[in-house]
Amino acid sequence: MPAETEAALVRAVDSAHRHEALFSDRAANIKQSAVRDVFDISIRPGLVSLAGGSPYLRSLPLKELGDTAQQIIAEHGLEALQYGGGQGMEKLRQQICEVMAAEGITDADPADLVVTTGSQSAQDVAAKVFCNPGDVILCEDPTYVGALNTFEAYQVDVQAVAMDDDGLVPEALQQRIDELQSEGRTIKALYTIPSFNNPSGITLKASRRQVIVDICKKHNILVLEDNPYGLLRFDGKPLTPLREGNPDDVIYLGSFSKIFAPGVRLGWALVPKHLHRRFYLACEAVVLCPSPLTQMLVSAYLSDYDWLGHLETTRALYSERCSTMLSALAQHLPASATWTRPDGGFFIWVTLPEGIDTYPLLYKAIDAGVVFIPGAAFTPSDAPSNKLRLAFSAVSSEDIVTGIERLAPILQEAIASNRA
Amino acid sequence: MPAETEAALVRAVDSAHRHEALFSDRAANIKQSAVRDVFDISIRPGLVSLAGGSPYLRSLPLKELGDTAQQIIAEHGLEALQYGGGQGMEKLRQQICEVMAAEGITDADPADLVVTTGSQSAQDVAAKVFCNPGDVILCEDPTYVGALNTFEAYQVDVQAVAMDDDGLVPEALQQRIDELQSEGRTIKALYTIPSFNNPSGITLKASRRQVIVDICKKHNILVLEDNPYGLLRFDGKPLTPLREGNPDDVIYLGSFSKIFAPGVRLGWALVPKHLHRRFYLACEAVVLCPSPLTQMLVSAYLSDYDWLGHLETTRALYSERCSTMLSALAQHLPASATWTRPDGGFFIWVTLPEGIDTYPLLYKAIDAGVVFIPGAAFTPSDAPSNKLRLAFSAVSSEDIVTGIERLAPILQEAIASNRA
Repeated sequence: MPAETEAALVRAVDSAHRHEALFSDRAANIKQSAVRDVFDISIRPGLVSLAGGSPYLRSLPLKELGDTAQQIIAEHGLEALQYGGGQGMEKLRQQICEVMAAEGITDADPADLVVTTGSQSAQDVAAKVFCNPGDVILCEDPTYVGALNTFEAYQVDVQAVAMDDDGLVPEALQQRIDELQSEGRTIKALYTIPSFNNPSGITLKASRRQVIVDICKKHNILVLEDNPYGLLRFDGKPLTPLREGNPDDVIYLGSFSKIFAPGVRLGWALVPKHLHRRFYLACEAVVLCPSPLTQMLVSAYLSDYDWLGHLETTRALYSERCSTMLSALAQHLPASATWTRPDGGFFIWVTLPEGIDTYPLLYKAIDAGVVFIPGAAFTPSDAPSNKLRLAFSAVSSEDIVTGIERLAPILQEAIASNRA
Repeated sequence: MPAETEAALVRAVDSAHRHEALFSDRAANIKQSAVRDVFDISIRPGLVSLAGGSPYLRSLPLKELGDTAQQIIAEHGLEALQYGGGQGMEKLRQQICEVMAAEGITDADPADLVVTTGSQSAQDVAAKVFCNPGDVILCEDPTYVGALNTFEAYQVDVQAVAMDDDGLVPEALQQRIDELQSEGRTIKALYTIPSFNNPSGITLKASRRQVIVDICKKHNILVLEDNPYGLLRFDGKPLTPLREGNPDDVIYLGSFSKIFAPGVRLGWALVPKHLHRRFYLACEAVVLCPSPLTQMLVSAYLSDYDWLGHLETTRALYSERCSTMLSALAQHLPASATWTRPDGGFFIWVTLPEGIDTYPLLYKAIDAGVVFIPGAAFTPSDAPSNKLRLAFSAVSSEDIVTGIERLAPILQEAIASNRA
C-alpha cells in the first residue's frame, strides 16, 4: 500500500472513531428496512420478486401522460419548476377531497390537507409532532415496516396489538391500553391500516371501525389511519374509512403511490383543524414544499384522465393475480401452512408452523430465484417470525405461479426440518 | 347557529383541548418561517417581492425540457413513475460528482452520495441523526432561516457565531466553542453557507476555509457545508468548498434548486464514508426514495443540455440585478444605512442604525407594495433586528428599482423616528 493511501486510511479510521460520539441517541434506532434491503436484489433479472409492494403501471397511458408533462413544463414551467406553497397546490387539494369522497370521506376541507412527499413523509411528521422518546404508538400486529422504521427513528415505543381475520381486535386494543396506562406509559396514537393491511391483507370489518375510534377517543389517543389501498377493493365499494364521522380524532393519510404512481412521490394528510397548523409547519420544515411539477402532473391526471377507469382495470388485475397466488399456494404449499385471503390491496400473509424462522429462508429463496419479505420485519419486536409476506401486485400471473413453485420446496423443507 | 353546528363546534373545541397534551416537546419548537410567511403575500399581483430567494427560470429551455419529460414518461415511464432506490439513481449520483467537480470537489465518490428531497431534507436528516435535544449546532450570524427552523424542530440549541465581511471569524468560532465547552455543552456541528451566505451575501474568504475546518476538527465538531449558491459566483471560478481536502470531516450539501429548478425538489448530501450508512437510512425512513421522475429529468438536463451555459446566463443576469440593486440602494437609502456587496448568490443584507426593528416595517412595506424579509428571521434569537434581507434573483431590474424606491421612504422614516 502506498504511504499516502495508508495515511488517508488511518485518518478515515480516526475520524470514524471520533465521530461515533456525535450520533444522536435516536440514530441507534435508525435501521435498514427489510423491504428496502431486498430492493436491489429483487430487480435482478431472472428473479421472481414477491417482495416489493410496487403497483402495476403498464396500464397507465404513458404516451399521453408524457404529452401532459410536456404541456405542463412547456406552458406552465415557470410555476411547475419553481418553489410552491408548503401545503400543496389548492387545486390538487380540492381534487384530493374528491378522491377521498370516492373512499367514503364526505366532509373533507382542502384547508385541512397537507400534500406530502409520499405518505411516508406524513408518518415521519406525525411521529415528530406527537412523540417524545419513549412515548407509545400502538399498531396492528403485523404492520407496515416503513412506519415502524419511521416511528422508531424518533425513539417511539411501538406496541403491537393483536388482529384476527376481521382486523384489529377491539378487546385486545382495550386491554393493551389498560396495561400500558397502568404502567404509566403515554400512548399518543394508534397507527392503523384498516383496509388490506400491509403486510397481512386483512381488513378491519365495518362494525369494528367506530368501536376502535371510540376506544382511542376515550383514552385521548389519536388515530393515524393509513389508507393507501382503500380504493383497491376487488369487489364492491370501498369500506368507509375511520375518518368519516370522526373529523376531530383521526389523522387520515392517503397516497397516490398505489392509485396512480409512486414515482411522483406524493401523498397527503387530512388533519383535524386544531392540529393542522403544527402538522403543516413540520412538513414544511422538512421539504419546504412538495414538487409543483409532480403535483401538476397528478392534478392533470385526476382532471383529464379516466383515473377511476384505470383503478377499475388495476383492481381487476390485482384481483386476478391474488386469485392466482391463492390457487398456487393451495396447490403447492403443505397443509400445515395457512394464509390470508385478502379482499383487496397487494399482499398475502403466509403463516408456517410455530418454531420456523422465515428469515434464513429468504436466502435459500433468493438462491432458488424468488424473493419474499420475512415476517419479522413487520413487528416491532426483533423476535423470529414464522410468517412471510408475498406481494402479488407487480408480478404477472405466470411469474406468480413460477415464484410459488420455487418457494414451495423451501417452505416444505423448513416445515419438515421443524417437525424433525 | 343551528344546534347541530354548535354541537360540532363544541366537539372540536373539546378535541383541541384534549389533544393539546399529545404534542411532543419538540412540537413547541416548530414554527413558521418568516420567508414562508410572506410567500403567499409575495405572489400578489402588483407587489414587488424582494423576499423570496427564487431562482430565475425564464432562460430555461422550457419547450425542450417538456419534450424531454415527454420522452422520459413515454419511453421510460415504468421506471420514472415507479419506486426507486433510496440513495438515488446511480447515473444521477455520478453526474452530481461532475457538478461538484465544477464546484472544486475533486474526489467525490457516487457511493458516498444520497440524493435528497431538496437540500432542506438533508438538513432535517442531519439534525435527526446527530442531535439530541439540547445539543448545539453552531451557525453563522446571520444564517438560513429554513435551517434554523429545521434544527430547532429537533430541539437543537442553535448558537450564532459572528461574521465579518470575510465570513465567519475563526477567532469568534474558537471563542464560542471554548465558552460552550467550558459550560459542558455538547457541540455537534457547524452549519455554514460559506459562499454568498443566505441572507447576508457574504463569502468566507479562501484563507479562512481550512482554518475553520481545522478548528472544528480539533474539537470533534462536524462541518455541515451548505453550498447551494457556490456555482453562482458573478466573476471568476467558484471558491473551493470546505469539503475539498476534508472528506472525513465535512458533510457537503448541494441543491439543484438554484442551478436548475426548485420544482424538481432535488438536492444531495455528500457524506463521509463512515457516516454515510446511517445518514442514508435516515433519509430513506423519511421519504423512501427521491422521485425517479424528477431525478431522470435532472439527469437528462445535465447530460443533454448546456447546463453550464445556462449557469453562465443566469450568473450574468444575477450579477446585473445585484448591481442594479446596489445602485438603487446607493441612490435612495440614507447614509446611515449600510449593506453588503455580494460576489454571487441571491441576496443583499441591509443594516439600519441600531435601535430600529425591521419587523414592523414589513407591514408598512407591504402597504407600499414591496416585500422583504426582516433580519430577526435569520438568527436563532428572537431579539429585534435592525437588518433586512433583499433578494434580487427573481426580480427584473426595473422592478428592483421600483421596489427600492417604494422601500426607501419607509426605511428613511424609521431612521428619522429612531433619531428622534
